[in-house]
Amino acid sequence: MARNDGRRRALGDAGLAILAREGARGLTHRAVDAEADVPVGTTSNYCRSRAQLVALLVARIGERLAPDPDVQAALAARAPDRDRFAAHVREIVARLTASRETTLALLELRLEAARRPEVAEALGGWMRDGFAGDVAFNAAAGLPGGAFEIALLHYAIDGLMLDRLTTSIDPGIDVDAAVDALVDRLLPESP
Amino acid sequence: MARNDGRRRALGDAGLAILAREGARGLTHRAVDAEADVPVGTTSNYCRSRAQLVALLVARIGERLAPDPDVQAALAARAPDRDRFAAHVREIVARLTASRETTLALLELRLEAARRPEVAEALGGWMRDGFAGDVAFNAAAGLPGGAFEIALLHYAIDGLMLDRLTTSIDPGIDVDAAVDALVDRLLPESP
Repeated sequence: MARNDGRRRALGDAGLAILAREGARGLTHRAVDAEADVPVGTTSNYCRSRAQLVALLVARIGERLAPDPDVQAALAARAPDRDRFAAHVREIVARLTASRETTLALLELRLEAARRPEVAEALGGWMRDGFAGDVAFNAAAGLPGGAFEIALLHYAIDGLMLDRLTTSIDPGIDVDAAVDALVDRLLPESP
Repeated sequence: MARNDGRRRALGDAGLAILAREGARGLTHRAVDAEADVPVGTTSNYCRSRAQLVALLVARIGERLAPDPDVQAALAARAPDRDRFAAHVREIVARLTASRETTLALLELRLEAARRPEVAEALGGWMRDGFAGDVAFNAAAGLPGGAFEIALLHYAIDGLMLDRLTTSIDPGIDVDAAVDALVDRLLPESP
């Protein structure tokens, strides 16, 4: 079981490297075998279909982008106000920026979702679960913003990441200053 | 000359169709020849390098996303306030949504820019010119928002389009309501 988990992680990492480097069209079971340096047919054993391969990659993105528990604990100890929430969002943006390959792979999968219903299903379910979790988290912690405001913030952060990881309209704009302004302006004053 | 312009447009349209359908990896001179149904070698005659092909596609995106002069004239006749600016942004979003293939092709090129410096150069120059034009337009028309605020709005609109054209975190959110809220909250009260 532990060995299987390690193998799954290795196949996931290989698939994400291919997505970031070549786009979704380069993603085949064979290409993942080669990238992970495992015998031909290994990826097919773990993922019978392309939909299963995509599901494995989505799960691996979730693992790779998971927050650092220490950082989260430090944030949770602060008063639940907009400053804390802004610190939380700055931490997410720093994580997405540092995980360049993962974030680019996720963007590639989103574009692939526009073409393939099975990708839209796997990725959409995970994204909507994450969004519902974000909305529930803010409500439970007494942090500002309902579903509508948090959706607006999601759009803006996605666009900011796209700007910084691909072509930027203005590389001189400070990322943290942009995040602070977005939180300040998009979320309501009181919860 | 007129015939050349028509041929360029046809090659551009073929390249954008390939980008939207298959991603950047499917984009080759040969594939554009086949998609445009022209003799093999035609695209190479017009675009000697891949960088020139990308430049042609960027120019074609600009043509395809150009605003309707009548709509622009009607907007320009209104008082320069946030309501007019919101109507302007709603019109842009409606245009990007209706031009699904073009907008997806643009997103594909942005991701390709993260991999290839020559794409980043062609696309980045066009995007920064457009952004500078937006900032100058608002300043000249007395509309609210400087470079920082307009950049925040760009990020948010890009993320909103990504949400609507690929996987959505909440398809129930009304696009026009989201645009109005973004303009209202991200741009300052007075110019």
